[in-house]
Amino acid sequence: MDEIVLNKLKEIFGDRLFLELSDRVSYGYDASFGQYEPEAVVQVKSTEEVQQVVLLASNYTIPIYPRGAGTSLSGGPLPVHGGIVLDFSQWTDKLEIYPEDLVIKVSPGVKTKDIHELAEAHNLMYAPDPSSARICTIGGNLAENAGGPRGVKYGVTKDYVVGLEVVTASGKIIKTGSSTVKNVTGYDMTKLLVGSEGTLGIITEATLRLIPKPEATLTALAVFDDLYTAGQSISKILTSGVRPSKMEILDNNSINKVEDYANLNLPRDAAAIILIEVDGHPDILTQELNTIKNSLIEIGVTNIQVAESKEEEEKLWKIRQLVSPAIVSSGYTKISEDATVPLSKIPDMFKKIDEIKVKYDLNIVVFGHAGDGNLHPTINTNMRDPEEVRRVENAVEEIFNYAIELGGTLSGEHGIGTMKKAFLENEVGQDGLQFQKAIKKALDPKNILNPGKIFPEKGEKRLVLKHD
Amino acid sequence: MDEIVLNKLKEIFGDRLFLELSDRVSYGYDASFGQYEPEAVVQVKSTEEVQQVVLLASNYTIPIYPRGAGTSLSGGPLPVHGGIVLDFSQWTDKLEIYPEDLVIKVSPGVKTKDIHELAEAHNLMYAPDPSSARICTIGGNLAENAGGPRGVKYGVTKDYVVGLEVVTASGKIIKTGSSTVKNVTGYDMTKLLVGSEGTLGIITEATLRLIPKPEATLTALAVFDDLYTAGQSISKILTSGVRPSKMEILDNNSINKVEDYANLNLPRDAAAIILIEVDGHPDILTQELNTIKNSLIEIGVTNIQVAESKEEEEKLWKIRQLVSPAIVSSGYTKISEDATVPLSKIPDMFKKIDEIKVKYDLNIVVFGHAGDGNLHPTINTNMRDPEEVRRVENAVEEIFNYAIELGGTLSGEHGIGTMKKAFLENEVGQDGLQFQKAIKKALDPKNILNPGKIFPEKGEKRLVLKHD
Repeated sequence: MDEIVLNKLKEIFGDRLFLELSDRVSYGYDASFGQYEPEAVVQVKSTEEVQQVVLLASNYTIPIYPRGAGTSLSGGPLPVHGGIVLDFSQWTDKLEIYPEDLVIKVSPGVKTKDIHELAEAHNLMYAPDPSSARICTIGGNLAENAGGPRGVKYGVTKDYVVGLEVVTASGKIIKTGSSTVKNVTGYDMTKLLVGSEGTLGIITEATLRLIPKPEATLTALAVFDDLYTAGQSISKILTSGVRPSKMEILDNNSINKVEDYANLNLPRDAAAIILIEVDGHPDILTQELNTIKNSLIEIGVTNIQVAESKEEEEKLWKIRQLVSPAIVSSGYTKISEDATVPLSKIPDMFKKIDEIKVKYDLNIVVFGHAGDGNLHPTINTNMRDPEEVRRVENAVEEIFNYAIELGGTLSGEHGIGTMKKAFLENEVGQDGLQFQKAIKKALDPKNILNPGKIFPEKGEKRLVLKHD
Repeated sequence: MDEIVLNKLKEIFGDRLFLELSDRVSYGYDASFGQYEPEAVVQVKSTEEVQQVVLLASNYTIPIYPRGAGTSLSGGPLPVHGGIVLDFSQWTDKLEIYPEDLVIKVSPGVKTKDIHELAEAHNLMYAPDPSSARICTIGGNLAENAGGPRGVKYGVTKDYVVGLEVVTASGKIIKTGSSTVKNVTGYDMTKLLVGSEGTLGIITEATLRLIPKPEATLTALAVFDDLYTAGQSISKILTSGVRPSKMEILDNNSINKVEDYANLNLPRDAAAIILIEVDGHPDILTQELNTIKNSLIEIGVTNIQVAESKEEEEKLWKIRQLVSPAIVSSGYTKISEDATVPLSKIPDMFKKIDEIKVKYDLNIVVFGHAGDGNLHPTINTNMRDPEEVRRVENAVEEIFNYAIELGGTLSGEHGIGTMKKAFLENEVGQDGLQFQKAIKKALDPKNILNPGKIFPEKGEKRLVLKHD
């Protein structure tokens, strides 16, 4: 990196500039895979600092990579072309609630859980609840448009962002949206920027909307002997007239991983379990679960258990929370997929994954946000075994293609990042890809903002987990 | 218009091409104001027809103006630069529901009410409910991102669009999104195109998501002696823990207009009334309204009346439905504004409008979607009186500027169109405007898609209702 740039960075950031290899490698990975090496890391703490880095990057054509807590499952923050990593995780000073306006204003480094807690202290709710909420930052959630279990009723991050402050690729500071939920002044830059993975502008502040916190929740565990029936039950529940606030599925493999890991006395023989939460006025939750129960009995559920206390409810949700740790604990690399299909196609997707499992002789665990059709087929693989890695690559490609064939999508909530860029064209078509690229080119002509993400680079035509 | 173009249009559209002046003038206005004259009108009925018109327009640089039912309140479909109007209102063939997927697929000319009815027949709900639902088309709703009373709980059009088919400015047919609610594959073209007022692409099909239809509704009418208290009650209700499904306000002037028009025995002396609907399980609606009632008593409501039957509920909502007809019936031109402010600022906005009313000696009626902070200050004016028109222009500018000053927005749901383009920069700033313009230029370099909308043209610095 140019000496002038380095000196300028030193001047701006002092001891918040990291150049040592040992520091830089810590910023070279995320929760997907791959290890890269940025040339410099800066811990940004103000909009002006971001602006100064962007201006430098623009003048010297240096790639810049915004990063929150690095929990991305799609490679969002990976510094694939070196350059400068902007670590936002230390920028936490703004966390201001305006309860009468039902909004909250936050700095990008604020943890999602801190937003939840502040809102709840005012009897309000910030609905998006990514599973990594205790660790991840809102900036990362905004970049990737993070989802979570509550998505089935309440939607995802984008649905709760009403305004942004953004530094553009040319170093201008712009504001999008306002402090109102409704806003149709020109193009919806807020919703374009949220989920654009830091490739169109860098978010430096967000105004999030809150909703009244539901008074109570009630959870049930439904056990199925047959995976196809479990899949069918999703549409059945969602057309029963009741709107569940969460609906999560675990297949037999997930159940057993969790049971191995935590000994919760789970039904090891079940083909699948579905965790269902309803929320709202306490007087009707039991009735609502009964409506759901009747739908499920009609369709052939094996057993339903309703939590009879808060402790029991927490115990049930623990099952879901432990899926990822349980998979990780097996030691191998965890490849988390994110295929999402129309609700009626969930049974087909389960069937296909079963076939793929056998065909490629792989250990595939399936769980996810059933109520959104958003499954997380997750593969444990030994990255040191090139032949196995090749089978994983083929399996993942088949899952992607089948999701698209069913009218679904490559990614429901993890984003494209580095992981799925080779497949974007399969979903949106060549003209659709050009349409998106035209926007990138117009807003970041020098391609300095998080380059190497979303759009495939030359020759990237398939998933490559490992270069041998 | 070039003879070659005309011949080509004749060839494609036959008797669905209109060239007579008497026909063309019918396509020159909408529900805002201003009268323009397109050179040709075509009634499109397929994606391929749209594509052919776009290719002609692109080759010969002719402005094209998509139009639904012409109910826009911001000038969205006005053919301000002549060219070709594409009438979508006759293209109604696709209206297909997939109840198990909770989606519905529609052609752009389908009436919003037909979508409501089909969804409800399956015990589902398409939530957006613009007041013109019985007349307007979904295509127009998509172009303008239409709102409606249910917005306070359920959001606006954009929140219910999961996929689009679009003809781009270069005549390519692209698909955005999918049949799944969650989709993060690259940039969110669906949410960029919805609300872009036909300036970035022409929507030829949409996949809309449905939600379970709430089992029941219950409505109350709250009467206030003081407008400021009425304004304050909005935040109070929304932070009471209950989520109303509608919350509409009428000021004294609106109440009296409706009473003059329809004799409903309304409280003519009230400073304001608020109509509040809660929805969900029938067993708790009365309790929820009681929670709201207690909040309102605390704040100083004059009186609350709860509808005791479906008939009474319908009678209450009739009050709101009759506001616009009542204003229109006075004979003068109706200028509908759409300023939206943070919830806590509603009382300030009411105060300001009161001052403006006196300052400019105008007849301003205020009503709107109180729960979103989305007010519709509406002015009756005699467009033949240039001096009065000038006062209206000044008053509207003051309302716009004050909404922005309060952290709000020019437009909550009507769009920018021709009406507010001179003020867009006041809200988004010069850099924000350039950011949006860069997208327009990238996606429609010849500026053929609905030109003269959203972005101010040279010299357009203020509201001009009438050129004398």
